[in-house]
Amino acid sequence: MNNDLLFLTKKIGPRISGSVNAKKALNWARKRMLEIAPDTVYLQEVVVPHWERGANEKSFFNTGRKKTEMKVCALGGSIATNGLLQANVLEVKNWDELDLISDNEIRGKFIFFNRAMDPKEIETYKAYLGAVDQRSIGAIEASKRGAIGVLIRSLTLKADDIPHTGAVSYDINTKKIPAAAIGIKSANLLSAALANNPNLMYSLKMECMALPDEKSYNLIGEIRGARFPHEYVTAGAHLDSWDLGEGAADDGTGVVQTLEVLQILKNLDQRPERSFRAILYMNEESGAHGAVQYAKEAREKNETHIAALESDAGGFTPRGFRVDGSLTVVKQIKTWMELFAPYKMGEIYQNQRGIDLLPMKGLSKALISLECDDQRFFDIHHSASDTYDKLNIREVKLGGASMSALSYLILKYGL
Amino acid sequence: MNNDLLFLTKKIGPRISGSVNAKKALNWARKRMLEIAPDTVYLQEVVVPHWERGANEKSFFNTGRKKTEMKVCALGGSIATNGLLQANVLEVKNWDELDLISDNEIRGKFIFFNRAMDPKEIETYKAYLGAVDQRSIGAIEASKRGAIGVLIRSLTLKADDIPHTGAVSYDINTKKIPAAAIGIKSANLLSAALANNPNLMYSLKMECMALPDEKSYNLIGEIRGARFPHEYVTAGAHLDSWDLGEGAADDGTGVVQTLEVLQILKNLDQRPERSFRAILYMNEESGAHGAVQYAKEAREKNETHIAALESDAGGFTPRGFRVDGSLTVVKQIKTWMELFAPYKMGEIYQNQRGIDLLPMKGLSKALISLECDDQRFFDIHHSASDTYDKLNIREVKLGGASMSALSYLILKYGL
Repeated sequence: MNNDLLFLTKKIGPRISGSVNAKKALNWARKRMLEIAPDTVYLQEVVVPHWERGANEKSFFNTGRKKTEMKVCALGGSIATNGLLQANVLEVKNWDELDLISDNEIRGKFIFFNRAMDPKEIETYKAYLGAVDQRSIGAIEASKRGAIGVLIRSLTLKADDIPHTGAVSYDINTKKIPAAAIGIKSANLLSAALANNPNLMYSLKMECMALPDEKSYNLIGEIRGARFPHEYVTAGAHLDSWDLGEGAADDGTGVVQTLEVLQILKNLDQRPERSFRAILYMNEESGAHGAVQYAKEAREKNETHIAALESDAGGFTPRGFRVDGSLTVVKQIKTWMELFAPYKMGEIYQNQRGIDLLPMKGLSKALISLECDDQRFFDIHHSASDTYDKLNIREVKLGGASMSALSYLILKYGL
Repeated sequence: MNNDLLFLTKKIGPRISGSVNAKKALNWARKRMLEIAPDTVYLQEVVVPHWERGANEKSFFNTGRKKTEMKVCALGGSIATNGLLQANVLEVKNWDELDLISDNEIRGKFIFFNRAMDPKEIETYKAYLGAVDQRSIGAIEASKRGAIGVLIRSLTLKADDIPHTGAVSYDINTKKIPAAAIGIKSANLLSAALANNPNLMYSLKMECMALPDEKSYNLIGEIRGARFPHEYVTAGAHLDSWDLGEGAADDGTGVVQTLEVLQILKNLDQRPERSFRAILYMNEESGAHGAVQYAKEAREKNETHIAALESDAGGFTPRGFRVDGSLTVVKQIKTWMELFAPYKMGEIYQNQRGIDLLPMKGLSKALISLECDDQRFFDIHHSASDTYDKLNIREVKLGGASMSALSYLILKYGL
């Protein structure tokens, strides 16, 4: 497992969908699945967006004769700036503040969305949800009002200056404007400078671009069930990552855990009662096209899906599972948790959080996401800091064991 | 809290008892306590051992003309080698294996204790307990049989080559022999080389030395209780550390958490019902002389101690508390845990693990150690890897909040 994680992060590295590295990751994972040798290993075609950051990202602001460099990165999917884009900046922390400003004032300016993730929220994911709207729809809302670009305070709880990317949305009725994430220290500097000098001039240069969509694939390794081969349990993770860092926590850990589940189930003396699929989804990070395609085909084939598991929570110490399903299903899974409790990973939480599971809602009886200690995740999430050295292999292994055990139980007893 | 931890780890750094750095840490902590301004801040004199590693640690073995360097460090308290100590090596994994070898065979050789911590043990501390006997009494047992030195496989679950120190015991009836910890990769290399060539020549040089005992101090910050001033609740950690790394996880985190508890209790509008002492113990790592002294004086003064809390488990995400106390006491603490459960830190475990609490057994109604996620602790424990960058400040803060909340409840309601 450690070798898999080292290879994926260090030999392949970041693997944004549509990229050469995504292809390399797919080839490597296919080779690994063939080594594990379940009954079948196959690819499922899916068309994915292909966006590239480009070479030069540069940003600074001028106050009088002083130039202050900013740490920024383009949000995933952003358009380029077409040279140096220069304008004044309006800082807002929420939509109400944006509403209070007239179109006239906004026109031709950058909007700087500077609402921090709430450090008092015990669950960092909830803190993330409380701030991610700025990144996801900030460019649309700002553009509607006449802004020429958006700067988003990085979505992290760590007080460093490494910018965190992530998908930006555009809509077809609104002009696309460049969108950049800005490091926390840079964001604080800019905010302080704006307080002194609201008319400072901000400059941003990004050369990112959307390329034509690419043909890519989900990767599936399948073990046929002995008694109910037409009932499926799946466990998966996403093979793509953002282009910064090494895609280690997000979602390299989930990828190697998924391979581990497949290996463990293959190693058992007996074939499982139901059929199992290990799925490595392509393109979770910018549209979940892979997961949408998987669910589409499963529906078209009228497949019976008992449970879909996903690991995409960073690969830290597992605490339990998040489950979406009927009361009966949740109750059944809870009874099994006494087997997990001695390993301190037996908690059941409401509302699963796997993006790649959402398209299976209504088709699979249970959607189950691995829940991990999340204190460190957003320190590194979507940034150049998401590297192998931030992980602990024992924690990753515990997650793999946990996913394997629950997959085994559902394969054996159903839901 | 982050500033405190940065200062302690980066500006002061490692602080073995009796050292100049231990004095610096004491002065800094006293200044911080005076800033917090509880009712009193005072020092409690304690005599501590003073051992220094010395400049040159060197180790290698020769097989034919090939020389293989080993990563080693002296165990804390070890005697020096008096130049290059050269001898053959006998590898053993347990005491039975040692018993099976004749005195004749052992005489004049190194004993290499190479039992690994059990990676299958979910609690890393239990894996540590299953291997630490080699370090603590290996030198005595080997010396009794005529060995001239011991090499101990480092007590860690990480497969790197950084040696981990820790206290070695000698006894007055047995000749002291040099004792070194050896990195995991080095230990594996040595083991493989011995399998091929049992007569290889091993060389070890260490210039460590015991200096005269030093006068040092525990540091105590006290807030007098409003209703029951003669009933004490204490929360503490140890200020000393080993001399490698920065004493970050062990026990810098506990130190800043202890200061945090004092600060939070001081910030409250009302004085607590009972008296509170924040205690920074000196010399946990090589004899717990500070804790012994504290308990001795508490007994001499006939003090009533309700609960003694300690944080010395690495400062990772808190999971709950380990409690030693009567059934009634444990039951009472368990009822409070519903307040901690929403923060996922509400578990109560049996058997507290704070070394500095042991001398209070029988005197304090409850001994309580903070329980943290422990997957990463022994990766860095007692080694050059125990540095600030391995920590996550949110996790440390959660531990501080958890200690503060339980201290508050016991101060208010008693036990």
